[in-house]
Amino acid sequence: MSHKFDLVFERSTKIIPENIWKCWTVPETLMKWFCPRPWKVTECRMNLIPGGEFYTLMQSPEGEKFPNNGCFLEIIPNKKLVWTNMMTSGFRPVKEDKMGFPFTVSLTLSAENGMTHYRAVVSHSDEEGMNKHKAMGFQEGWGLAFDQLLELNK
Amino acid sequence: MSHKFDLVFERSTKIIPENIWKCWTVPETLMKWFCPRPWKVTECRMNLIPGGEFYTLMQSPEGEKFPNNGCFLEIIPNKKLVWTNMMTSGFRPVKEDKMGFPFTVSLTLSAENGMTHYRAVVSHSDEEGMNKHKAMGFQEGWGLAFDQLLELNK
Repeated sequence: MSHKFDLVFERSTKIIPENIWKCWTVPETLMKWFCPRPWKVTECRMNLIPGGEFYTLMQSPEGEKFPNNGCFLEIIPNKKLVWTNMMTSGFRPVKEDKMGFPFTVSLTLSAENGMTHYRAVVSHSDEEGMNKHKAMGFQEGWGLAFDQLLELNK
Repeated sequence: MSHKFDLVFERSTKIIPENIWKCWTVPETLMKWFCPRPWKVTECRMNLIPGGEFYTLMQSPEGEKFPNNGCFLEIIPNKKLVWTNMMTSGFRPVKEDKMGFPFTVSLTLSAENGMTHYRAVVSHSDEEGMNKHKAMGFQEGWGLAFDQLLELNK
């Protein structure tokens, strides 16, 4: 189900859900694909429980660093992963980045006819946040990252 | 465990955890005590699952209405209830009220020597939010509401 302030990214792939799950939930693996090159993730901390921290530090080609706070909300191994950028460890609210916008990502993996359906629904509080995310290159960014994930699983 | 941006409200009572839990999780019961009189709660919706909605509509003595969005995050019956005002149903971000501030409430009930320890830790993103909440009368408000809860259980 999708809502008017959602952005949706979806693909079908032959990679089994278990392997995609590892890409999302093992920090050293996530760091290899999560950020479209030449950007990179140079730090990642995750505590895979509801209320657990999901932190990444991204680095631009020029070496500028961008910390990203996050918190896991729902975890069903190999099937569903929900997290938000509005909180950190212990569901604590995070101080809002005035350049940013709040969102929640709900990633689902479903096996269908020998393929895996990969679907990320990213929900926002309003049209402005959604449009900002879209204009930042949401589809392109998630697409490039997904291609890097595919590459890792070759 | 408490953090520098937390406000903590705690009391000891003879009311058993099961009865306090009902006061928090049955809408018709919550409406009777949740808001210090002469304010009142005139509507309440709750879906007691992680990601479920927790909505209340508060009404001032003058009849002005104040909707409060919320979302449950963690539920351990009779022991722990965690919810936030930053989200609504499905963990969707809620448009921030510019007069408000984001918070997460973690309520724990623990039985100790025939008494119940009632402890609410309310976490904020920064000192400003915490101070705003404190200045609004956090201790007094939670205290008055708690007294109304006690009264209901007499």
